Amino acid sequence: MLSIVPATFEHSSNIREMFREVLVAGDTIPEDDTLTDTEIDAIWFGNGISPFVALYGGEVVGAHRLNPNYAGPGSHVANATYVTHTAYRGKGIGRRLVEHSLGEAKRQGYKAMQYNFVVSTNEAAVRLYKSLGFQILATLPQAFLHPTLGYVDVHVMHTFLSTD
Amino acid sequence: MLSIVPATFEHSSNIREMFREVLVAGDTIPEDDTLTDTEIDAIWFGNGISPFVALYGGEVVGAHRLNPNYAGPGSHVANATYVTHTAYRGKGIGRRLVEHSLGEAKRQGYKAMQYNFVVSTNEAAVRLYKSLGFQILATLPQAFLHPTLGYVDVHVMHTFLSTD
Repeated sequence: MLSIVPATFEHSSNIREMFREVLVAGDTIPEDDTLTDTEIDAIWFGNGISPFVALYGGEVVGAHRLNPNYAGPGSHVANATYVTHTAYRGKGIGRRLVEHSLGEAKRQGYKAMQYNFVVSTNEAAVRLYKSLGFQILATLPQAFLHPTLGYVDVHVMHTFLSTD
Repeated sequence: MLSIVPATFEHSSNIREMFREVLVAGDTIPEDDTLTDTEIDAIWFGNGISPFVALYGGEVVGAHRLNPNYAGPGSHVANATYVTHTAYRGKGIGRRLVEHSLGEAKRQGYKAMQYNFVVSTNEAAVRLYKSLGFQILATLPQAFLHPTLGYVDVHVMHTFLSTD
């Protein structure tokens, strides 16, 4: 059974490992693949970040991080990042992570969730987010340098969080 | 005569003063008005940031900062922030700062400029950016809590940098 719980620093090496796999693949996240352990830990455990891990049989199989998309007068909109362990993909863990982050964002009082940078060629992610109610607000032309496809478009995706 | 030159740390107190005025007004930038001097300096003089000041008769009357909008595979798109001293507004300094940042971004090899967060009620800025070729790629609904108007929309604006 999959459970999603707040991450503690004891999960940091698992998170770093999953995040590095994504960075090295280089096809979804606009970050350098040369980030140090300290820099990755700051992304996941820094000020104002709520990190969570997905556990399956005691193993860390995925993670998400929730944070305000902007500070001050922009802090009522959430942002999130997701990673799933390569050995556990295609099992619906990504969907569970997204659903969990939406519930948690609502619980924390956010009014909406915005993803600033969904690479258009990451079709599974685009489909998943749409199926959960997200809309494409904009397509940023040629905003991502894909390792095999060259410059590709990027979507800004958004959903309000229901307040019922 | 107005000149725009690379900022050095000796300009930092002037920049902090102008930036704080914008934060305290609270109607254009999604940052906390409680930022410390060190935090403001990191925004203007941190790693990968190119800061510039506009000088008029020896006085610092404005500033902009240029940086990659994202890292790694997203680092070919620039982002910039502008401030003009309150005593020198309405004199075309903002336009000169934007024009300078576009030229400098092109010189540094960026392919486009993207503003992630242009508050829609900041009509002078929206008009200025449009007049310089920017398009509104998206309008983020209710993404900014304006101090007097409540939740207002925010534009994502973009222009390619010509390569001739």
